[in-house]
Amino acid sequence: MSDGWAGAAADLLDEADSAALVDHHVHGALRTGPSRSAYGRALNEVDTDPAPPQVNPFDSQLGFAIRAWCAPVLGLERHADPDDYWTARAALGEDEVNRRFLTAANVSHWLVDTGFRTADLTDPHTMAVTSGGNAAEVVRLETLAEQVVAEGATPSTYADAFRELLERRSLSAVAAKSVLAYRAGFDVDLGRPDDLEVERRSERWFVESEHTDSPRLVDPRLIAFGIHEAADLGLAIQLHVGLGDRDLDLHRCDPMLLLDLLRAPGVARVPVLLLHCYPFERQAGYLAQGFGNVFLDVGLAVNHLGARSTELVARSLELAPLHKVLYSSDACGPSDLHFLGARLWRNAMARVLGGFVDADEWALADARRVLRMVARDNALHAYERLDELPS
Amino acid sequence: MSDGWAGAAADLLDEADSAALVDHHVHGALRTGPSRSAYGRALNEVDTDPAPPQVNPFDSQLGFAIRAWCAPVLGLERHADPDDYWTARAALGEDEVNRRFLTAANVSHWLVDTGFRTADLTDPHTMAVTSGGNAAEVVRLETLAEQVVAEGATPSTYADAFRELLERRSLSAVAAKSVLAYRAGFDVDLGRPDDLEVERRSERWFVESEHTDSPRLVDPRLIAFGIHEAADLGLAIQLHVGLGDRDLDLHRCDPMLLLDLLRAPGVARVPVLLLHCYPFERQAGYLAQGFGNVFLDVGLAVNHLGARSTELVARSLELAPLHKVLYSSDACGPSDLHFLGARLWRNAMARVLGGFVDADEWALADARRVLRMVARDNALHAYERLDELPS
Amino acid sequence: MSDGWAGAAADLLDEADSAALVDHHVHGALRTGPSRSAYGRALNEVDTDPAPPQVNPFDSQLGFAIRAWCAPVLGLERHADPDDYWTARAALGEDEVNRRFLTAANVSHWLVDTGFRTADLTDPHTMAVTSGGNAAEVVRLETLAEQVVAEGATPSTYADAFRELLERRSLSAVAAKSVLAYRAGFDVDLGRPDDLEVERRSERWFVESEHTDSPRLVDPRLIAFGIHEAADLGLAIQLHVGLGDRDLDLHRCDPMLLLDLLRAPGVARVPVLLLHCYPFERQAGYLAQGFGNVFLDVGLAVNHLGARSTELVARSLELAPLHKVLYSSDACGPSDLHFLGARLWRNAMARVLGGFVDADEWALADARRVLRMVARDNALHAYERLDELPS
Repeated sequence: MSDGWAGAAADLLDEADSAALVDHHVHGALRTGPSRSAYGRALNEVDTDPAPPQVNPFDSQLGFAIRAWCAPVLGLERHADPDDYWTARAALGEDEVNRRFLTAANVSHWLVDTGFRTADLTDPHTMAVTSGGNAAEVVRLETLAEQVVAEGATPSTYADAFRELLERRSLSAVAAKSVLAYRAGFDVDLGRPDDLEVERRSERWFVESEHTDSPRLVDPRLIAFGIHEAADLGLAIQLHVGLGDRDLDLHRCDPMLLLDLLRAPGVARVPVLLLHCYPFERQAGYLAQGFGNVFLDVGLAVNHLGARSTELVARSLELAPLHKVLYSSDACGPSDLHFLGARLWRNAMARVLGGFVDADEWALADARRVLRMVARDNALHAYERLDELPS
Repeated sequence: MSDGWAGAAADLLDEADSAALVDHHVHGALRTGPSRSAYGRALNEVDTDPAPPQVNPFDSQLGFAIRAWCAPVLGLERHADPDDYWTARAALGEDEVNRRFLTAANVSHWLVDTGFRTADLTDPHTMAVTSGGNAAEVVRLETLAEQVVAEGATPSTYADAFRELLERRSLSAVAAKSVLAYRAGFDVDLGRPDDLEVERRSERWFVESEHTDSPRLVDPRLIAFGIHEAADLGLAIQLHVGLGDRDLDLHRCDPMLLLDLLRAPGVARVPVLLLHCYPFERQAGYLAQGFGNVFLDVGLAVNHLGARSTELVARSLELAPLHKVLYSSDACGPSDLHFLGARLWRNAMARVLGGFVDADEWALADARRVLRMVARDNALHAYERLDELPS
Repeated sequence: MSDGWAGAAADLLDEADSAALVDHHVHGALRTGPSRSAYGRALNEVDTDPAPPQVNPFDSQLGFAIRAWCAPVLGLERHADPDDYWTARAALGEDEVNRRFLTAANVSHWLVDTGFRTADLTDPHTMAVTSGGNAAEVVRLETLAEQVVAEGATPSTYADAFRELLERRSLSAVAAKSVLAYRAGFDVDLGRPDDLEVERRSERWFVESEHTDSPRLVDPRLIAFGIHEAADLGLAIQLHVGLGDRDLDLHRCDPMLLLDLLRAPGVARVPVLLLHCYPFERQAGYLAQGFGNVFLDVGLAVNHLGARSTELVARSLELAPLHKVLYSSDACGPSDLHFLGARLWRNAMARVLGGFVDADEWALADARRVLRMVARDNALHAYERLDELPS
């Protein structure tokens, strides 16, 4: 990999390549081959409309990065033409595409959010088998809440039914995730509601969703209820922060707005993982220095920034103590993204830490050690249950 | 130009120099030579007071950039002394200064905001003649509203009179611009008001401005009315975002606060151009990925950041799809700024894209193509009317 | 110092090393040697809890920077092992440690905040004697207010007693500092309260703090009173902005929220110094361009960012006119930090300005001049009283 690399970055790229990663927040890979337009849509995180025909969805940092780094995995030259890329990808079939990308990612542990697009995406077991690594489940709290409702809970049974389902699912889960960012934003009261408030709130929710088949949880108090319950069970809490699709009010997802939640005693007892964080990665670093249980990553954004991801990774290494930074791809769907996240992150870490070493700000041995920490050790410490779970 | 440049950046600088730019948001050049203190004041965007005598207004990134890049156009060495620069500039006279800078800018299309300091600045026709390029008009919505009032509208006739004037002016305009950022900030209700509300609001405005000769529109609902009307006419909407003078509450100009406006169906049908964006350029990139009709530039700030503009241009190339980024200078007054914006932008693009290529993240051919897109093609697509207008 | 440095950065590093700095905001050094755990805690600005035993407090950018730059001052190799560093430091004793670091910092003027941890830290006189430089006092407004109460003020005497104490203390002080950021945030009414409001507010404060020995001022109106009074006396006003410990709501310390205060006529007559500013340094630069009396630094954050401080210093040189940027370490306690701030700042300035020169954006002579301005001249102008004070 290190052709054309010089200085400490070349050494560190070898180190990065040899380290099996913990991808601590990811979704499944596609079960079946996408249409070309669906694939193109997967290259835009924020906009959910189909791109107009005159626009090439590869004309973005992400598209250029796929052509640069994923093309060789499909047997093509670097910077392959988009048409050639698509043709080669489609010819291989999704199983072979997944096998190639998931093994090339060199990930030892996938922590898979199973609460989103479950029907389209491979489950953790398949991720493990296909990649030759391990996989563990992350349960999505809003999805559990909606399942409780679908299974017939009433306002008076909702709180207990949610607790019971969460407890059952937590037996095989390594963490709980909340998409509060999407559903309500962070500028809401995140204190713990009592059961009476949960009953009143769920009653309102049930009335509002009476005529829909798939009730969608948006009540911030019910979401807060789920987070506090998960913390009580000792589950690590993953929180989507920053960058997401355009339904999300980005300015209401500044992680600083989570201060009250982080100051809650129950939440302070479990790891809280701030995901993505773009463009608030410096605020997330501040929280990671301030709270012994807060971690961050810059997943998702690394893929979308492509050639600019080096600077983003560098900014994630400012205030946060070095044992509080994690790796994730947040890939969802095309397994090109599962691989690309790992590739770009390895390149960025080698360049950034290599720069520190070449400027004689860091010793090379420290840089190697930090690379391993962020690649895997920090995650293995944050998710203590990772080794206890049935695989 | 490419002495001392190496690698792909040198190739891309040649490409950048050969591309005639579309400066999609700019003001006129000075009609007559400024006093030295007025010239110094023009180097500070934010502060509108005269600088104290002991302060050299050239002691800023902008001042250093003028001395580095504009001095040779006046026949001086790079990094000329401020006194020498001023002497040479004054000796040439404003017509010759304008001729030199506007031609050296190599801009094929100037899209000129004609609603600000009209008496002091050259009109689009003069811009075209002086530069040997083309010029089109951008109408400023707040100025039109104030003109309607000056021409005797009453509360009951205001809405129709505004519509009529806007429609008439739109025949020769390529876009409409709003300075909502200055007048009210974005944290206001930007939904479409009905005519009854417009009548009530304009009545209040008229009462408040009864004793002034130049009524100033600050009512956010009346400004929103103007924006929605312009969108109805199919006009592209330019919005001032971020950086401006100190009357502006910068934190209330975060483009994320425009989400509701961008989600309005009428606005979604026309191009929306986010101007300047500093220090919110990453948020603007997020919106450009999220909304098929949203574009951004980092004009104005490029000039003010001078040697630091490379990093700003790089940050504008993160989330935004590459067909959604535009060039502008936002120069206003001294034509040194019309030239400098183009010069710094070309340098920055060559350095940034050259860096991507040298790191083998982008192919050189793609970098060349993207350079042309941002230099001109993206603007020509965004402003479809540019070719239909009488020139 | 300039081994391994090339280009203009090497020249500028020599220039930086030869310039004696004005550290315009700093605290005292430790009077006595800390325990190892107290020392470790001093490496984390935000979190005030002891680090868990398995965590090495040196595993941060700050810790790596101490090992890289402070170790040689203690007679160790660069990148010394943390255990070796601690052993050498403890063996020397705090007086010798202070002597070494404070002289190695090459600071001609220390402007010392005397209102925080006074019992643990050296006073300005000792700072001057130990370092061979000069020291002046910065009075902390909240501490004065609390002293007035401790000395028996009643609601009806509070305003006058505060004024009297402030006036007395101002005779030997070069500036007044407020930690409004910590106590209330900036999103409060910062207009000037009249004496009646001060009486009412102090009454409420006294009632609330009746049963505590150390009344803590958190009322934003009383803090605003102090700031306006200090401005009346012509004192420069230092304001903590951004980065601080986790009791601080970072998003409520955006300096843009100070706009109303900065627009107050009395405040406009004195220098206002925005301290630290991370991650709002670009907003602070905007204010420094906008208001003739506003200055900024990126102290504290430079130490905490270590190898990443170069980028931060670069961002502080964007919109701010070059006579509006200052140096501070904001070191507090271990004198390693007093030295490190100066060392990292010199390195960063040499690298950043050297980059501008090597790209031919700045002339070398201008870079040398700006380096001296930010190192000391700007501060000497901002604090006119610095030369009038009894030393």
